[in-house]
Amino acid sequence: MEKYNVAVVGATGAVGEKIVKLLEERDFPIKQLKLLSSKRSAGTKVKFNGEMITIEEATDDSFQDIDLALFSAGGTVSKRFAPEAVRCGAVVVDNTSAFRMDEKVPLVVPEVNEDDLQLHQGIIANPNCSTIQMVTALKPIKDAFGLKRVIVSTYQAVSGAGNQAVEELRKQAKQFINNEEITAEILPVKGDKHHYPIAFNALPQIDLFQDNGYTLEEMKMINETKKIMHAEELSVAATCVRLPFFTSHAESVYIEVEQDGITTVDIWKVLENAEGIILQDNPSIQNYPTPIAASGKKEVFVGRVRKDLDQQNGIHLWIVSDNLLKGAAWNTVQIAEKLIEKGLLSN
Amino acid sequence: MEKYNVAVVGATGAVGEKIVKLLEERDFPIKQLKLLSSKRSAGTKVKFNGEMITIEEATDDSFQDIDLALFSAGGTVSKRFAPEAVRCGAVVVDNTSAFRMDEKVPLVVPEVNEDDLQLHQGIIANPNCSTIQMVTALKPIKDAFGLKRVIVSTYQAVSGAGNQAVEELRKQAKQFINNEEITAEILPVKGDKHHYPIAFNALPQIDLFQDNGYTLEEMKMINETKKIMHAEELSVAATCVRLPFFTSHAESVYIEVEQDGITTVDIWKVLENAEGIILQDNPSIQNYPTPIAASGKKEVFVGRVRKDLDQQNGIHLWIVSDNLLKGAAWNTVQIAEKLIEKGLLSN
Repeated sequence: MEKYNVAVVGATGAVGEKIVKLLEERDFPIKQLKLLSSKRSAGTKVKFNGEMITIEEATDDSFQDIDLALFSAGGTVSKRFAPEAVRCGAVVVDNTSAFRMDEKVPLVVPEVNEDDLQLHQGIIANPNCSTIQMVTALKPIKDAFGLKRVIVSTYQAVSGAGNQAVEELRKQAKQFINNEEITAEILPVKGDKHHYPIAFNALPQIDLFQDNGYTLEEMKMINETKKIMHAEELSVAATCVRLPFFTSHAESVYIEVEQDGITTVDIWKVLENAEGIILQDNPSIQNYPTPIAASGKKEVFVGRVRKDLDQQNGIHLWIVSDNLLKGAAWNTVQIAEKLIEKGLLSN
Repeated sequence: MEKYNVAVVGATGAVGEKIVKLLEERDFPIKQLKLLSSKRSAGTKVKFNGEMITIEEATDDSFQDIDLALFSAGGTVSKRFAPEAVRCGAVVVDNTSAFRMDEKVPLVVPEVNEDDLQLHQGIIANPNCSTIQMVTALKPIKDAFGLKRVIVSTYQAVSGAGNQAVEELRKQAKQFINNEEITAEILPVKGDKHHYPIAFNALPQIDLFQDNGYTLEEMKMINETKKIMHAEELSVAATCVRLPFFTSHAESVYIEVEQDGITTVDIWKVLENAEGIILQDNPSIQNYPTPIAASGKKEVFVGRVRKDLDQQNGIHLWIVSDNLLKGAAWNTVQIAEKLIEKGLLSN
């Protein structure tokens, strides 16, 4: 089997750590693994397949001889170094929003549009976490019954905002238990003007507000869903909310399918046979997905499937998945595996 | 000013405590206050207007000479004693679901349908907490522009499930901080077969599942909204989710209005002038409602108002209110005040 020189950029971040772990767990065909980060984290040692690898600072020279570069260090780093990596002959899978809406860059969820990988020109974008789990669940439904519209309200974990947000929730929970004043410095958005407590609260802001009153996270869900599903005409609406749990995003999703007369059982059958989906939907034994139960798992969990009581073709779903795995690291590694499978990665 | 003999049934519960506090705060015209509860809580003393009142066990004889009885001790207690109170000449405001869908019982949110109070035959029902805040915000919009459909996903506080659920979240947060195993005995539904952790989690079940796959909470929102708004033809869909915060429910609400061409500014204007509503909607300064900020306040807070990007008449809203105040105790006391104002209470 061919082996590849792989670089992980942002190896110390919430997602980067998971990527390294998955490369090991999946026995990814690695000749040499290079771990890159900002100057600040360089020098840190990370265990991989029994060896200690020292994290190096990413520079223009970092990508010589690299076949595959997995980026997860923020949009600025990707914009700076991904083109450099491509120039050096690497294929880039980028986990940031830097290139997602670039027409020349495929935006890929393997269960949904793996064929788009063929069109890559060096960079492949990994979609936003909340988008990935939704399109994974909606694709088989769209294929079976057609899809006219989607309205989603999200319930998103703090780890989507990085390790500092995780620490902030932990710190605030401790402050609450110790009857101390709760202090907020990171959420809802690091670097934005105001910060509000996330512990025992709900913040209807994920990422910065855009001029149209939507947040960037909401616009990502709307635009990326249409691009991944090749459905410019699909009506998509999103409200994104940050909540006090650590891992896995949940989504309350309303859809309207094209085909008339679809029942809950029809939806169940499609989801049961769909790749990457686990159906957890048995109200009589209180079986439904939750963020805690989905954490650490690679699949997308779907439950609470029910027909709208007024709208003929309306269906409600509850979709949960680990935002750091299927929502980020696992989808990235999955793309890398698909590139090899399709002969799209050379060494 | 006329004064009345008032009974509060369930005076030691999460809502009952707030009712007693509000009666004092509002300087409600009370001749004599009687606090009633189950046998278990009888004997407890509660301070009211500087006097200590001993809680008595509710019996058939408890309602002699009572003019107004405010019930908040669960549906079984209301079914057992509310008709008795009416027989004794009292007007009952019932905070449980026991009589809400009874055709002879008005279901009232004063800002929405205070005229329905005129039709009462002894019992007036206080709606479900998540319904109250939603209809309060939607009524002025319906009056101004017409309303065709509503799709709501809720973010509900544990106090909606009573004081034991509040204690459970506190206990689990402590267990987490102390690295202990998290134990669940109450939520999602006390007395249901399974219990799941609520701390750092999201549970898509509030109240028991019905045969149609919806939970009772979801059916309450659907049915009560239509009854309160006198809109049988209104399309209403609900997904109800319990979350790890103590007080105030939040709701992501999508609506479609009848009138074409409505802008965000049109909605703002209507909400700014509406009774019982505070508009908090300025993305440029990250101003939007949150559960923590709304707690302890009587109003319904609305923000994140924005037009749907695809649907001509679609509008998204984020509605937050204290579930124990406007969602329960305050709406109950408001109804009592309206009864006096309208001459519907005799002593």
